Amino acid sequence: MRIILCGFGVVGQSLAKLLDSRTEDLYAQYGIKPRVVGVFDSKGSAVDTSGLDLNRLVEIKKKFGTVKKYANKNANLSGLDLIDDLDADVLVESTVSNYKDAEPGMTHITNALKKGLHVVSVNKGPLALAFPSLMELAEYNQVLLRFSGTVGGGTPILNYAKNSLRGERVLSFQGILNGTTNYILTNMANGMSFKSALLDAKKRGYVEADESLDLDGLDAAAKLVILANWIMGMRVTLPDIKRTGIRNVSSSDIKKAEKKNCAIKLIASCNKELVVAPKEVLQDDPLCVNGTLNAISFTSEHSGTQTIIGRGAGGVETASSILRDLLDIRQEISRNGAANYF
Amino acid sequence: MRIILCGFGVVGQSLAKLLDSRTEDLYAQYGIKPRVVGVFDSKGSAVDTSGLDLNRLVEIKKKFGTVKKYANKNANLSGLDLIDDLDADVLVESTVSNYKDAEPGMTHITNALKKGLHVVSVNKGPLALAFPSLMELAEYNQVLLRFSGTVGGGTPILNYAKNSLRGERVLSFQGILNGTTNYILTNMANGMSFKSALLDAKKRGYVEADESLDLDGLDAAAKLVILANWIMGMRVTLPDIKRTGIRNVSSSDIKKAEKKNCAIKLIASCNKELVVAPKEVLQDDPLCVNGTLNAISFTSEHSGTQTIIGRGAGGVETASSILRDLLDIRQEISRNGAANYF
Repeated sequence: MRIILCGFGVVGQSLAKLLDSRTEDLYAQYGIKPRVVGVFDSKGSAVDTSGLDLNRLVEIKKKFGTVKKYANKNANLSGLDLIDDLDADVLVESTVSNYKDAEPGMTHITNALKKGLHVVSVNKGPLALAFPSLMELAEYNQVLLRFSGTVGGGTPILNYAKNSLRGERVLSFQGILNGTTNYILTNMANGMSFKSALLDAKKRGYVEADESLDLDGLDAAAKLVILANWIMGMRVTLPDIKRTGIRNVSSSDIKKAEKKNCAIKLIASCNKELVVAPKEVLQDDPLCVNGTLNAISFTSEHSGTQTIIGRGAGGVETASSILRDLLDIRQEISRNGAANYF
Repeated sequence: MRIILCGFGVVGQSLAKLLDSRTEDLYAQYGIKPRVVGVFDSKGSAVDTSGLDLNRLVEIKKKFGTVKKYANKNANLSGLDLIDDLDADVLVESTVSNYKDAEPGMTHITNALKKGLHVVSVNKGPLALAFPSLMELAEYNQVLLRFSGTVGGGTPILNYAKNSLRGERVLSFQGILNGTTNYILTNMANGMSFKSALLDAKKRGYVEADESLDLDGLDAAAKLVILANWIMGMRVTLPDIKRTGIRNVSSSDIKKAEKKNCAIKLIASCNKELVVAPKEVLQDDPLCVNGTLNAISFTSEHSGTQTIIGRGAGGVETASSILRDLLDIRQEISRNGAANYF
């Protein structure tokens, strides 16, 4: 399985380490031999058609801040160059999410799909802005588009609702899908002001470079778009979400909620409407988790309400979800009788 | 898909209603046409090789307390008679669990497997006493043995850990796997004595006819056996579990725990040893759920600790898990290229 890796930040590096450490095990257990044939970051690129040395790649990145120094050749290719020129099977897109035009991820993904590459995206931007058309493009080109890491980090929420609940009709769901705002609200419930709670979250590196993505509920809304399309079969994009962030949640709101044995959480919900907004949640509801945890409750027709809780982010966790997607792609391909060259 | 149904209690009746209400949908969505060709309860049997009228079957059971009155013919066949004589594809075993010899379920299952029937069991007894050899028997006869409903009722815990976490190594897990004891312990934490809490649980119909199954941790231990075999690849049976029930948990133990922000829960855990015992759990641990809820936390190598919470029992919920197993069997069969007569 030849992989092009777009972006080499925390997630990309974690994936490189994970693949490197599990080479033998992945081949023995799943018959999969992932080789990263090309990678690029904001400063440059590295290519080896027989597979980059992942260990060395991570070291080079650490030392020079870019993969560009990996070799003298092919050090200045763009993502599009790589996608156009390299023979590969899968594109892993892990550049930064943005919700204006979703670039450069959008172009990476569409070009890869058109070229017949399967795509694993942990970049939420393109999916938030164009989920329905990207899925159509993938189907049209008979390739797979997977994105387990976009919701719940390492917690396989999408797979759970799609596969483990097979045969069930999910009627509605609601969740805490953004760990950063949950951390801030938890600290406010413990007495901090919004300002100090935000500062504390920033110090710990929990807040996106563009803080609006967390505070104004954009990140949660992007995840809601993905869930609504994938689990509920809706055809929606970011503008379809009613969205309110946490900037106006006051300490007195939180105290009022406490008197009713509730906590205020930023809840993304799908129940007739698609809404992201601060909401009072009963403290003994399984959904009411604290700190940076994520949680989601699915209500299905016959098997009741079920809640999944886990860490919603983290490089290693997200890398493990990419690996699951790669295994998924491997399985789908062999099921469809394609060449077993992976 | 021709089904023989062993037992027609709450779960069996819920399954009949579920299959009846979803006939068209199941065929349209999954290409599956389940027909119950034989059923029996403790008093008698009903047979129709072209498929019993499930609606009528439920009404007959309601009216006469047995399915025996469904027709004049074939009303006194035993489970073994049905398994021997009827042409069928799947046996659904839902007779009562016992942990002494697991009969009559054990004989139903082994005979069905030997005859080449796939088996869906919601009866925990045979699995608790003989999981490894039953799986071997199924493999030897090239049929599937499934049991989603034995752990977590309608909450697909087994599937989650096996499939949604694919590519991951589950290192350990711990869970509240018995809703009855959780209900009793929750009431004790709210000030009730053990005796009144037990009485209350009995009044609500939460306690097994043999109360020892709940109170002495046998039910939780049986589920632990199933999880350890299925998720961790262990080869263990009930005697391998260290087991302590909740009879000796006192109100003062619970108060002591509360001072440490903990609650006492009956925890089934797999971490080097397999243990069922009352244990202090931090109140803000996602695992610490109240009432009749079940919860389980899996800790995996890369994606951290993840908790699933749901109702652990209920007729409709368990029936929905049987349906998932039937869909699973349907899929496996068509993947293996068997005749598509389902």
